[in-house]
Amino acid sequence: MGFDAIEVITVKRDRGELPTAQIDWVIDAYTRGEVADEQMSALLMAILLNGMNRREIADWTQAMIRSGERMDWSSLDRPTADKHSTGGVGDKITLPLAPLVAACGAYVPQLSGRGLGHTGGTLDKLESIPGWRASLSNDEMLAVIRSAGAVVCAAGAGLAPADKKLYALRDVTGTVESIPLIASSIMSKKIAEGTGSLVLDVKAGSGAFMKNVDDARELARTMVELGTDAGVRTVALLTAMDRPLGLKVGNALEVEESVEVLAGGGPADVVELTVRLAREMLEAAAVPGARDPEEALKDGSAMDAWRRMIAAQGGDPDAPLPTAAESAVVTAPASGTLRTLDALKVGVAAWRLGAGRARKEDPVSAGAGIVLHAKPGETVRAGAPLMTLHADEAARFDRALQALEGAYEIGEGDGAELLPLVIDRLTA
Amino acid sequence: MGFDAIEVITVKRDRGELPTAQIDWVIDAYTRGEVADEQMSALLMAILLNGMNRREIADWTQAMIRSGERMDWSSLDRPTADKHSTGGVGDKITLPLAPLVAACGAYVPQLSGRGLGHTGGTLDKLESIPGWRASLSNDEMLAVIRSAGAVVCAAGAGLAPADKKLYALRDVTGTVESIPLIASSIMSKKIAEGTGSLVLDVKAGSGAFMKNVDDARELARTMVELGTDAGVRTVALLTAMDRPLGLKVGNALEVEESVEVLAGGGPADVVELTVRLAREMLEAAAVPGARDPEEALKDGSAMDAWRRMIAAQGGDPDAPLPTAAESAVVTAPASGTLRTLDALKVGVAAWRLGAGRARKEDPVSAGAGIVLHAKPGETVRAGAPLMTLHADEAARFDRALQALEGAYEIGEGDGAELLPLVIDRLTA
Repeated sequence: MGFDAIEVITVKRDRGELPTAQIDWVIDAYTRGEVADEQMSALLMAILLNGMNRREIADWTQAMIRSGERMDWSSLDRPTADKHSTGGVGDKITLPLAPLVAACGAYVPQLSGRGLGHTGGTLDKLESIPGWRASLSNDEMLAVIRSAGAVVCAAGAGLAPADKKLYALRDVTGTVESIPLIASSIMSKKIAEGTGSLVLDVKAGSGAFMKNVDDARELARTMVELGTDAGVRTVALLTAMDRPLGLKVGNALEVEESVEVLAGGGPADVVELTVRLAREMLEAAAVPGARDPEEALKDGSAMDAWRRMIAAQGGDPDAPLPTAAESAVVTAPASGTLRTLDALKVGVAAWRLGAGRARKEDPVSAGAGIVLHAKPGETVRAGAPLMTLHADEAARFDRALQALEGAYEIGEGDGAELLPLVIDRLTA
Repeated sequence: MGFDAIEVITVKRDRGELPTAQIDWVIDAYTRGEVADEQMSALLMAILLNGMNRREIADWTQAMIRSGERMDWSSLDRPTADKHSTGGVGDKITLPLAPLVAACGAYVPQLSGRGLGHTGGTLDKLESIPGWRASLSNDEMLAVIRSAGAVVCAAGAGLAPADKKLYALRDVTGTVESIPLIASSIMSKKIAEGTGSLVLDVKAGSGAFMKNVDDARELARTMVELGTDAGVRTVALLTAMDRPLGLKVGNALEVEESVEVLAGGGPADVVELTVRLAREMLEAAAVPGARDPEEALKDGSAMDAWRRMIAAQGGDPDAPLPTAAESAVVTAPASGTLRTLDALKVGVAAWRLGAGRARKEDPVSAGAGIVLHAKPGETVRAGAPLMTLHADEAARFDRALQALEGAYEIGEGDGAELLPLVIDRLTA
């Protein structure tokens, strides 16, 4: 197939539809280095501005999947269930969810990533557990899943290498914010991971990648179409990220809150979303004789699965979690109702405290983060603690407090103007 | 000024207006290699699709001019006049025009380029004259202009280096076809050449860069605005390139036709356009006591200027021009009126015969090209010669004849549907 990069760029630049053969060629040639970065970035900008239709997005995704290996779970004797969240502040749901769904009867192979910017990464959180390791070979992954029912680990470099290369390019060329490109990036990895069913948690609000509900819905719709076209049973929940999820934001702090949920406690929003996603995953995976997730939280079987899962990856589920050396309390400046608590500002503050990284190669602090003492809608009293900041060095508090300026509003009257926790549900 | 490439890209991607400081920074940082090719190509695609306004285009042009040196002709005792053509098939006008305008009283420093693709380059044409050389130092340039009144030579690498780097990038990233980028590329070089007045010959039609009159008019308008904003008296003629200009297409062949014009003969369209452009240049340059161009062609003073100019650059104006070893005659398949003669197809055929190059580093044949025996609107007789092809190797005729398929139409009735030679005239 003798195409030419300029030919492909020109089609999309002139608002045309890219034929399947051109998409296959350009992704393959780019992965091999035959199409140059400056050509691909021009094409990405043309795609961002002129869009791609459903067929083009499906072809683009399949071409990225074909650039690498595809995992195969067919040797397992139960259905596999998979979940992906577009990420948010305090979003630790994968931690209680994976063992919970395993305890209900599915196998849960959860390939995850690290955090960048104000949203945390699942692997960073789990690495705060002493001894736990994120990198497993395919054989180790299968062994953990057979013994614990669930595994949360790093995706190998062999999955969708075209996506890795494209993602790095988009990051430096202002071409991240394209729904077709975001959707195909997420779905190429998920489909290459060999999942048979997929539940998407697409977040909307200041702390999410998609700031407004319409954009989030469009992204969710695009991903559901992509999964469906690839033969994966796909469901998407549209969920709130205008305020943080739960009361704890940070690596070890979020592990702590996840263990509270697995122990039958924890904040209501984290419990509600975990149970809702578990039910969706069990239904999408069509697990025969699946147990009820609320039941599995109550009777300790989800906690048992968590302990097996952590131990199987070298972690000590009983070891004390690391804590930060310094803390500072933010008190309420007035009495009234906490009307807003901006997810983005809390996320940026936690990041500046050391919970997140600015560059891929930076380390993160296990103990740093924020504990909220009130959630929007609750009544607060002037001078009472609103949140506690944790950091390894007290010098970090100043910049975190700057990030929190205007992060909350205390006012008269009842309740707060918030998005519903689950805004919508989309299926094919 | 600490900008960031992603920030600048994002402004234009989101249909914003680039502030002057961002334009200055991005052009300078790109020239220094601080902004990467893949970032600039994303910005170029955003500019192509979302446009730039008059102020942005002027800033972009000035930033490119400032990336290099600016020439200065103020030591000369007469006004300088300059012309630029956007290029076409058989467009040899610079050759008779520069000495003609010099003979009428202006100094004409004409910095020119080489051909790529189906349009020929002025320097390639002049290099078919034995001994003539295109590369001159600034001092040599001044010496030639003082002795001959006109100089046609290669632009030095020091003029608008940002444009050179950007042009090479646009060439491989599908971002050539943007009127703001084309206009600023041409005008940055012309303004850096230190011209005080400028006449633009903007061509429209199949053999031109702008295929339709509306696009050509938009390009002409943008360039006139740019010149005016930079303090250069600028006039644009919109001229026809639906059919070739003159009867000869090729390097030595076009020198031959230019000498015919300077000798008081030559095809009517070449003479008309040369005289018209000469009058516009003399008027724009406000040459005191300028002579009449028709007069200067008749009395031999333009020819004298030509001979001095060629000799001053090492050329022998009396040496026989090179000719191609092989020729082939294309005859008219029917009798009637030649209704069309497609400029692009003739240009591509001449290119395939060896008159042009596919890559910058390719050589060109001095003798190759096409001589037309009839122009659109003329009557032809079945079996009579329509054109003669010239090439160094007979093996080239087949592919040239393929390019000529459908290049002309012979029909009933009088005349042909052609664009007027001069379609319009634009000023500030």
